[in-house]
Amino acid sequence: MTTPEKRHPDPERARNRRRQVLDAASACFGRSGFHGASMAEISKAAGMSAGHIYNYFDGKDAIIAAFVEENVERVSALLRDLESRGDVLQALLDDVPKSVLEHLDREVWKLPLEITAEASRNPTIAAVVHDADRRTRAIFRPLLKAGRERHGLPADDALLDGRMDAIITVFQGLSARAQHNPDIDNDALIASIHVAMRALLFT
Amino acid sequence: MTTPEKRHPDPERARNRRRQVLDAASACFGRSGFHGASMAEISKAAGMSAGHIYNYFDGKDAIIAAFVEENVERVSALLRDLESRGDVLQALLDDVPKSVLEHLDREVWKLPLEITAEASRNPTIAAVVHDADRRTRAIFRPLLKAGRERHGLPADDALLDGRMDAIITVFQGLSARAQHNPDIDNDALIASIHVAMRALLFT
Repeated sequence: MTTPEKRHPDPERARNRRRQVLDAASACFGRSGFHGASMAEISKAAGMSAGHIYNYFDGKDAIIAAFVEENVERVSALLRDLESRGDVLQALLDDVPKSVLEHLDREVWKLPLEITAEASRNPTIAAVVHDADRRTRAIFRPLLKAGRERHGLPADDALLDGRMDAIITVFQGLSARAQHNPDIDNDALIASIHVAMRALLFT
Repeated sequence: MTTPEKRHPDPERARNRRRQVLDAASACFGRSGFHGASMAEISKAAGMSAGHIYNYFDGKDAIIAAFVEENVERVSALLRDLESRGDVLQALLDDVPKSVLEHLDREVWKLPLEITAEASRNPTIAAVVHDADRRTRAIFRPLLKAGRERHGLPADDALLDGRMDAIITVFQGLSARAQHNPDIDNDALIASIHVAMRALLFT
């Protein structure tokens, strides 16, 4: 399942309008949560009529699906960058300081945290995030496999599944951790995540 | 900051009533989210008038605070159990299969995921979870310190902070991971989390 984009005669204009709605929705969901934010509130924040928004999105579920799709594209670009650097395992490990700090940004991860909570109770959103996760792992898997084989490490299917889920667990966990502990010692946490990631990647 | 419990002449009866409200609220928040669930909906599910509920809780924020407090008590009991087993590091590592499976339960962790999302936008809930996290780490810290010293491992303050946050990151991440990937290979993930935890505990 991918996000169905409605067709429009002027794609450039449609893209801008969609962006306008997504930015407004992001602010509204961040403030009031998925259930608390109404389409009326979103349309007011976007400066567009609700009817006009429905030209671009069928409702709040479709807006969330668009955010999830943007995240798939973001992670795909990150994975392509890792691949271009040759030694994928070492590149992942080298990026730990940067990627840990990114995942500790409390503003950036508000919406993904809301989407995770919503997926736990809304089957439509659950299907969207399951599909996005499956596609992301399908891109990650061959990179991790090639990376491990390059270092002569085991790379059977079950091991790759376990390592992928564990690595993503760490990053998803960081965005939650930042909301619970406002006094994180960033350098100390980076050092510890580096230890865990090195073990996950190189053993 | 701890949850202020309102005083009642019959503590046993008050405890039962509070439990009744918390069970109803848990179901409502799970279904509709924190913002979507009204006190009217919670009072209907609890079979009590909204006015009666206000004898026990000042509102939804106070109900969430009670859930957070229950979780502090749950984790404190887990930590006391680890301590009673002597070698805390080894006990934590031995428990990985059980604790990973517990954190992958998609129903149990719906409410904590909702609370994390709510903490990201609601300063009252943020203060409650920050305080709970600080108190939990204050119990965890001396156990981890003694456990590492027993094994002749470094146990300075920054290292303990980093390890604690990394270990909690892994468990918080698992509850999110379970919502994103419905096809987790549990055994493979347990093996990978074991590798990461061994590194975090014993290096």
